[in-house]
Formats: sequence, structure tokens, C-alpha cells
Amino acid sequence: MENPVKLPLETVVLTPGGSSRREELLAIEVPYRVLLNETEIGASMVLPTGLEEFGPGFLFGQGYITSPGEVVEVWVCPEGKISVYADVPENSAPKEVIITSGCGGTGKISKEMLEGAFKPLREATITFPEIREFILEVLNRSALGRQTHCVHGCGFWADGRLRAFFEDVGRHNAVDKIIGAILLGRFPPSGAIYTTGRLTSDMVLKCARIGIPIVMSRTAPSSLGLAIARRAGVTLAAYARPDRLNVFHRPERIRC
Amino acid sequence: MENPVKLPLETVVLTPGGSSRREELLAIEVPYRVLLNETEIGASMVLPTGLEEFGPGFLFGQGYITSPGEVVEVWVCPEGKISVYADVPENSAPKEVIITSGCGGTGKISKEMLEGAFKPLREATITFPEIREFILEVLNRSALGRQTHCVHGCGFWADGRLRAFFEDVGRHNAVDKIIGAILLGRFPPSGAIYTTGRLTSDMVLKCARIGIPIVMSRTAPSSLGLAIARRAGVTLAAYARPDRLNVFHRPERIRC
Repeated sequence: MENPVKLPLETVVLTPGGSSRREELLAIEVPYRVLLNETEIGASMVLPTGLEEFGPGFLFGQGYITSPGEVVEVWVCPEGKISVYADVPENSAPKEVIITSGCGGTGKISKEMLEGAFKPLREATITFPEIREFILEVLNRSALGRQTHCVHGCGFWADGRLRAFFEDVGRHNAVDKIIGAILLGRFPPSGAIYTTGRLTSDMVLKCARIGIPIVMSRTAPSSLGLAIARRAGVTLAAYARPDRLNVFHRPERIRC
Repeated sequence: MENPVKLPLETVVLTPGGSSRREELLAIEVPYRVLLNETEIGASMVLPTGLEEFGPGFLFGQGYITSPGEVVEVWVCPEGKISVYADVPENSAPKEVIITSGCGGTGKISKEMLEGAFKPLREATITFPEIREFILEVLNRSALGRQTHCVHGCGFWADGRLRAFFEDVGRHNAVDKIIGAILLGRFPPSGAIYTTGRLTSDMVLKCARIGIPIVMSRTAPSSLGLAIARRAGVTLAAYARPDRLNVFHRPERIRC
């Protein structure tokens, strides 16, 4: 049986003129554990297709498997486990590691963060004239993104103005820089964050954990990004444009 | 002094009709180590801006810092180190971790992988009629990407045909699935890989390590992605379209 890879969902499209309903499709994002010779090496969020291939590829990326002759067998258990058997020495893992730009501050998230309760969010609302100014200012500042096509931008809006804007090669890193500014006491989390990157689980999770109530993206959320927004009570707005938001959860914080 | 964030580079634009020169800008991607109270917690690839904010944000993402009151001081050393001093208990790191979909199999890469020598690539060339068929077939199969805007596609071409196509929420995961297929013995690495995602360091690194000689992307490489391609001798083609490639390194494997 094939795993489902998409989830239909009814969303609310908001414009300055009013609201309408829309059917969207979300990509499924689920955690899978990867084992090597019955030892758990790690768990990764994936789209649940090509899992037999993902297991050895994941272990190659981490440095446990290095060449085609080594893989003996792969078993995929639909409950979230990929067991790879390979002819490799024990304790072959690399010692000194660098977290890649795809990951930023949350290349790893803890199970507790994912499954635990959230502290209350720091409440805020945002109006359409503010959204318009917010998005236009972020896009206006994203010169490096337009020049290189290789960086994501992220801004934070509160009290009627842009409080911070950062760019990074990693979409997670750009969000981490906003969260770092909050941790440095520059402004409280009671506002709206806008990212040019996708809202996968870890992106929404870190915003919810720090207490940001409104999370907006130029592009789409994943199924697990939405699930976390629901659990935390975060407003999740996708495909955000100066005059149009596609709201997947809690539209009441957006004022027309 | 501000860190440089972009690097000009002359590239070769190839079409079925011939070649021309072009000036491109690459986003700078560099590793920075993050320390908490003088203990190294990890290293991350970043765009070197907003580093004072990135340090605490990175530690928040990893679960070491949890609220604004905790950060005491941040020192950024331009040689690649961010030192955060914070009022947190020792050994506050979470135990059970999940690698996020932004990262895939190489959420972590080892220093040895990044700095060590490469094995020889498995040689291959590709012609423009093949590139055209390859890219159109990958885009044609990317229905989930078009429907959800939340997955990346990745294909592998060798011996005149598409050998594999995978999608995933993470651009790294989709590449890991191709590499997993190579590790499972389905086809040798002597061919071309095409991804809809950006070619940051880790993306190029894993392709080079498994021996793929031609790496193509719908979008851009980073500075470190290019540096790895140069060191490994990989052909790096960006902004790949059915009739146009912007080649950043080793165009001779592309035949008109």
C-alpha cells in the first residue's frame, strides 16, 4: 500500500475586500527513524515515498555508508522505521560535524519540543495596510536574494513597523536570526514573522516556541507545519502577498 | 568591517546554438562555530550577516536557550566563531533528536568530508537533446510539487534515459533518495543529477562523494557549493532549462 503524500484542506483567502474559501493540498511531512544494523542512527522528517532509497542515502550523508557494495538489505516499516543492514564496521560515524545551511539552528529538534505543550503565545493582530507595508519592505530589502537566487529573507513586524530583517543561505538560519534578536531583547515576540521559505515543521515549531502568534510565508506549509500551528494556536498564513493571504489556521488575527 | 556576502563570477551560458559569457553573483556560505559559555555546541553554514543574532537563535533551535532573559553577551569573531554567554544550566541539551526536513541525510557533514580529498568521479557527458528530455520529464513528474508548492524534485539521467525520480519535503532528502538508489546498485553514478533545489555545500558534497560528475539545478549554487565542485572536478550547471544551462564549472561535459 502506498503512503499518502498529500492532504486536502479548506483554507480562507483574505484580501482587503473580504474573504473566500479555497481548497489547498498539503505535502505530507512525517518523521521516520533510520536504523543501521539494528542501531538507531537518527530520525528525519520526510515525504513518505522512496523510503527504501532514503535509508541508505541518509546513512551515506551522515558518513556511515560509503559505497554501493556495502548495503545488504533495507526494510521499511510503515509505522515510521527504515532498517538498513550493511556490511560496514561498527562505530564508523564521523566525529567532528558541521550543521549545514539547509538546517540552521534546528537541524535537530527534540522529541519533547515536537510533542510537548507550548507556552501561551504573545498575542498580536495585524491589518492589511500593515501586511502590505511589511511584505513590500521585506521584498525591497531582499536585493541579495534577487541577485544570487540563493538566500532566503525573513522579517519581523510589530507595533506598526518592521523591527528586523535578515537574510541567509538557509531559510532556517534567517528565522534563527529573528529569534536571536528576540532573545537579545530587541523586541518582544508579539508580532508577525514573514519568511520567503516554506513552513515545514521545524520552521513553525521554533516560531511557536518563542511565542510569535502570526507566521506568514511567501510560499506553502507542510502537513506537519500546519499540525504544529494548530497545536500551538499560531496563525498560519501562506502564499502571502501585499493584498492577499491564504490562511490555513486562525484567521482572526488578520484584520481587514 | 562588514563581511562580504556576495562573490562575482564569470560563467558560461550554453544553449544548443552555442555559448556566451555571463557575470553572476554568488551568495557567500561559510561555516561558523557556535559556543555556549565557552563550550562548542556546533558549527553551521551561514551567510555571514546578523551573526550576533544567529548565535542565540541557533542555540534556541537546539534547545540550549529558551527565553530572552537568559542571554548575557554575544561575541562574534570574524574568523568563524560566535561566543554566546548565557545564564543557563550546564548540560541543558535535549536528548532524543529528530533531523528536520530542511536537512535530510546531511543535516550534519563531517569536517573530513568537507576538507578531505575526493575519489575520482565516474565520468559521463550529456547532450542538449538529452538535457531537454531529462528536465521536461522531471518537471512533468513533479505533480506533487505543483500541487503543494512544498516539495523538491530530483532526477538522475544516464545512458540516454531517466533512471530515477524522487520528491521530498527537503531538497536534501530528494537527493538522498537518488544516492540511496545508487547505493542499492540500481545504476552507477556515471550520469547527471538534476534538482529543483539550490546547490549549497552539502548538496554538491554528497553528489561529489558518491561520484556523480554532472550536477544540475533549476536554481543557484552558493559560493561553497561552487568551491566543492571545483575541488572535486564536478560540472556545476545552474538555472537549468530545457534549452539553456548556466555553467559555473567544467562545461566540457555538456555537449551541444
